Amino acid sequence: MLSPPWWTVLDPSDWEAFRSAAHRALDDAIDSLRDVRDEPVWQQVPDEIKARLREPMPDRPRAFEDVYGEYRETIAPYVTGNIHPRFWGWVHGSGTPGGAIADMLAAFMNSNVGGRDHGAVYVERQVIGWFRDLFGMPADASGLLVSGSSAANFIAVLAARTRAQENVRATGVHQHDAPLVGYASAATHACVRKAFENAGLGSAALRVLPVDANHRMDVNALRTTIESDRSTGNRPFLIVGNAGTVDVGAIDPLKELAEIAQREQIWLHVDGAFGAPAYLSQTLRGKLAGIESADSIAFDFHKWLHVPYDAGCVLVRDGAVHRATFASEGPYITRMPRGLAAGEPWFTDYGPELSRGFRALKVWFTLKEHGSQKLAHAIERNCEQARMFASLVDAHPLFERVAPVELQIVVFRPVLPGISPVEIDTIVDEAAIRVQESGEAVLSSTTVEGRRALRVCITNHRTQDADLQRLPALLEAVIGEMRSTRAG
Amino acid sequence: MLSPPWWTVLDPSDWEAFRSAAHRALDDAIDSLRDVRDEPVWQQVPDEIKARLREPMPDRPRAFEDVYGEYRETIAPYVTGNIHPRFWGWVHGSGTPGGAIADMLAAFMNSNVGGRDHGAVYVERQVIGWFRDLFGMPADASGLLVSGSSAANFIAVLAARTRAQENVRATGVHQHDAPLVGYASAATHACVRKAFENAGLGSAALRVLPVDANHRMDVNALRTTIESDRSTGNRPFLIVGNAGTVDVGAIDPLKELAEIAQREQIWLHVDGAFGAPAYLSQTLRGKLAGIESADSIAFDFHKWLHVPYDAGCVLVRDGAVHRATFASEGPYITRMPRGLAAGEPWFTDYGPELSRGFRALKVWFTLKEHGSQKLAHAIERNCEQARMFASLVDAHPLFERVAPVELQIVVFRPVLPGISPVEIDTIVDEAAIRVQESGEAVLSSTTVEGRRALRVCITNHRTQDADLQRLPALLEAVIGEMRSTRAG
Repeated sequence: MLSPPWWTVLDPSDWEAFRSAAHRALDDAIDSLRDVRDEPVWQQVPDEIKARLREPMPDRPRAFEDVYGEYRETIAPYVTGNIHPRFWGWVHGSGTPGGAIADMLAAFMNSNVGGRDHGAVYVERQVIGWFRDLFGMPADASGLLVSGSSAANFIAVLAARTRAQENVRATGVHQHDAPLVGYASAATHACVRKAFENAGLGSAALRVLPVDANHRMDVNALRTTIESDRSTGNRPFLIVGNAGTVDVGAIDPLKELAEIAQREQIWLHVDGAFGAPAYLSQTLRGKLAGIESADSIAFDFHKWLHVPYDAGCVLVRDGAVHRATFASEGPYITRMPRGLAAGEPWFTDYGPELSRGFRALKVWFTLKEHGSQKLAHAIERNCEQARMFASLVDAHPLFERVAPVELQIVVFRPVLPGISPVEIDTIVDEAAIRVQESGEAVLSSTTVEGRRALRVCITNHRTQDADLQRLPALLEAVIGEMRSTRAG
Repeated sequence: MLSPPWWTVLDPSDWEAFRSAAHRALDDAIDSLRDVRDEPVWQQVPDEIKARLREPMPDRPRAFEDVYGEYRETIAPYVTGNIHPRFWGWVHGSGTPGGAIADMLAAFMNSNVGGRDHGAVYVERQVIGWFRDLFGMPADASGLLVSGSSAANFIAVLAARTRAQENVRATGVHQHDAPLVGYASAATHACVRKAFENAGLGSAALRVLPVDANHRMDVNALRTTIESDRSTGNRPFLIVGNAGTVDVGAIDPLKELAEIAQREQIWLHVDGAFGAPAYLSQTLRGKLAGIESADSIAFDFHKWLHVPYDAGCVLVRDGAVHRATFASEGPYITRMPRGLAAGEPWFTDYGPELSRGFRALKVWFTLKEHGSQKLAHAIERNCEQARMFASLVDAHPLFERVAPVELQIVVFRPVLPGISPVEIDTIVDEAAIRVQESGEAVLSSTTVEGRRALRVCITNHRTQDADLQRLPALLEAVIGEMRSTRAG
C-alpha cells in the first residue's frame, strides 16, 4: 500500500479536485487572452494589492484552488500589457496560447536540459538546427537557447574572447597590456556594454562608433578606429553589428562589417534580438544581407516570433570555440557511453548554466503550429503597419517623424511652435505616461539624436490597422490636456 | 469589424477547438503525473524518434491538436525521469502539478520581468523577501530570481568583484598585478570555477582547498592560504562555502568561514544550491549555522523545493553593491515617475538580463500551496530516507558506504574481494547505467576520494521508503549479471 504521510507529498491528495481547479485556470486564461481587447492594455497595481504582495512567507498548506483565487485577484489583472493588440512599448512579443500550453507541458515534464540523454535535448537541438540552417551556418556550428539576447550577446562575447586570448579561462583577462578591444555603434543595446563588463574586459574596451543619418554604424569610423587601435598596441577582437537597433530599428551595414571582419580577422557578432527573425521573410531578408557571414548571432524567440517569455538563442559558427569557452568537468557530470548520462554533447558545455529548463518546447510548438511562412507574414504585416502609421504621423500637423522606418518602429515627436526643446522632451515623456495610464494603448519614449521622442514599436501579431489609426487622436488629446492644464 | 488576414494572426481561428485541445493536453499531463509510478523512470529516445527530431523547419501552419499529437508521440514519453518516485540521480527536484499550472499562467500573462511597473515585479519582490527574511538578511539586501545556482553563483562572484576592485566595470579585470583570488573547497561545484572564468578572473584565481574526512573545507588550509596570498601580493576577495556539496552533501563549517571572512574583510558567498532550503526545517537548520552571516547566498527552487525547472535565486546582503554591479542606462530603459516605465528598482539592475520571464509565479504558487512547514517536512523526510537507505547499505554484504550521510545523499560502492579498484570503478559506472536502462530506478555515479561510487540522492517528494528498499536487490542483480557475463 502506498499511503505516504500526507505532510511530505506535494502532489494533490485529491487529484480530481486539482484537475477541476486546473481546468478552471486554463479556461480563465484562454478567456482572458481571447477577450484581451476589451481590457485595459495596462493598469497600475493598486496599493492595497501591493500590500498583500508584501505578506510574509506562508507556513501552512492551502488548497490549490484558494491559491488560484488569490492569483486571480492580486496578480492576473496586472499584466505587462504586451499581450494586448494596442501594446507598442519597447520591443515585446505578444505570446500565443499555443506557446503557453507548450510551456505548461514543459513544466509537467520538468526536464533539466543542461545535458544527458532525453527527449528535451533532441528538441532543443532541432530548434537550434532550424535557425542555424536559416542563417546559413554550417552543420558544425553550435547554438544554445537562452533567456534572451542579453544572455546570447554575453555568450558571444565570451566565445570571441576565447578565440582572441589564449588560455583566458585559466589566467583571466589581462587588460593592462595590449588589451582586447571591440566595436559597436552608439545605437547598440546597453547589454553589449554589460557583456564587456561582466566578462572582465571593461566597458572602456568597447569602442562606441558614431552612426550615420540612418542610425547605421559609420563604417569609415570603424576602419579608422581599428587602424588606430592596432597602431597603439590594442588588440581588436570583436565587431558587434545590429540587425535592428533598439531605438529606431536600424540595421548596420552587415555586408561591409563582414568584409572588414574578414580582412582584419576579427569576430563578427550580430545582435539581431528582434530583427534577425525578419530573415524568415523573403521580402525583408535583403535588409539583413551579410548576417550569413557572422561568426555569431543573437536573437529572441519571445520578441518577433511571439514565443512566451523568456526565450532567445545564440548561434556560433565555430562550434569548437564555443565549446572550448564553457566545457568543464566534474565527477558528477561525467559522460557515460549509455544510459541517462550519455547524450554528448551536453548543453552545459555551451553556456554558463548546468540547470536549464525546457524552453525549446514552446519554440518547437510555435514553429510547428504556425510554420515559418505565417510567422514571416506576421513580421511583414507589422512592417507594413509601421509604414502606414508613419504616413499618419507625416500627415498630422501635430507630429514630425525623427527617423526613417526601417522595420516596425516609428519614432516621432510633437511639433509645438514656441515651446522649447526641453519642454517638448518633458511633454513627450508625460504623453507616453498618460497614454499608458489611460489603458487605451502603450507606447514608449526614447532619445533620438539627443532629444526625447515617442516610439511606437509594432512587434504584435494582434494589432489591427484600426488600432494604430486611433493613436494620433489619443496622443493629440493627452497633449492637448497637458497644455490646457499648463495654460490654466 | 475585426477580421484580420488569417495569415498574420497567431491566435486560434477557432478558439473553442483550441480550448478543447488544450484541455486534452492538460488532462493528459495530469494523468501522466498521477500515474508516473507505472511508467519507466527513464527510457532511451529511439533512433526513429531522433530522426523525426531532425526534420527541417516547418513552413506551413498546422492545427494545434496535430502538433500536440506529434508531441505526445515524439517528446512526452522521453522525460529526464526526475518526476518519478524512483529517480535519485544527480540533484533534481520532482516538480509539482501546481507549479506546472503556475508556469502556464505565467506564459499566458507573458510578462517581461526585467523591470517596469506591473504585477509580476511585486510577486518576484515578495518571493525574494521571503527568503531574504528566512536567511536573516536585512531589509535592504537584494535578490534576483535566476535559472539556477550556476547563474546565482556567477552574479555573486561579480558582486564580490565590484566590491574588491574599484571601477572594474569600466576598466576590466587586471589580473597581472595583485590579482584577486578566491577560495573554495575541492568539493565545490564546477560552476564556481566557471564563474571565475566567465568573469575574466581566471580559474587560477580560485584556490582549491582540501577537505577533511567529512568532505568539509579544511579551515586551517584556508587560513594559511589567505596568509600566503597576502604575503605574495595577491588580493583575497571571496570565500565560497558549500551548504551541501554536490557529491556527498557535505556542509562546510560556515560559522568558521564567516569568522574568517569577517576578520579578513573578505566576501563570504554560500553556494546552497540544494542545501540552503533545508534552513526551512527547524531540525535541520542547525547544520547550516553561519549561513546567516553570508554576504551572498545562491540556492535553487527547482531542486529541494520542487518548483518546476528552472528557478534559482541569489541574495546579496549589500544591495547597493549588487546594484552597482549591474545597473546601466539606455534611453529606451529610462525610468519614469509614473506609468508602465515606473517601478524602480528594476530587476535588470541586479543581473545580466533585461528580458526575464515570470519564474517567480511558480515559486509563489509553490510556497502558497504547500507552505514552508510542509516543504520543510518533505526535506526532512528525504533526509530520514537517506539514513534508512544508508542502514540498508551498511547491512548489505555486497556494499560499503564511502561517505557519511549529512543530508539526503548516500554514496557507496560494491565490495568485491579479488577485484581491482579500477575494475570496481568500471562496475560502478556500468551498474548505474544498467539500472537506468532497466527503467526501474535512476541513480548516478560519481568520484569520491579518487574512486567511483554509486550515488543515491533523494531530492524527491514522491519517493516512498519501499521504493528505496527495492534498490539493493536491483543493484545486486545487475552486478551479478555483469559478473556472470564476464565469467561466461
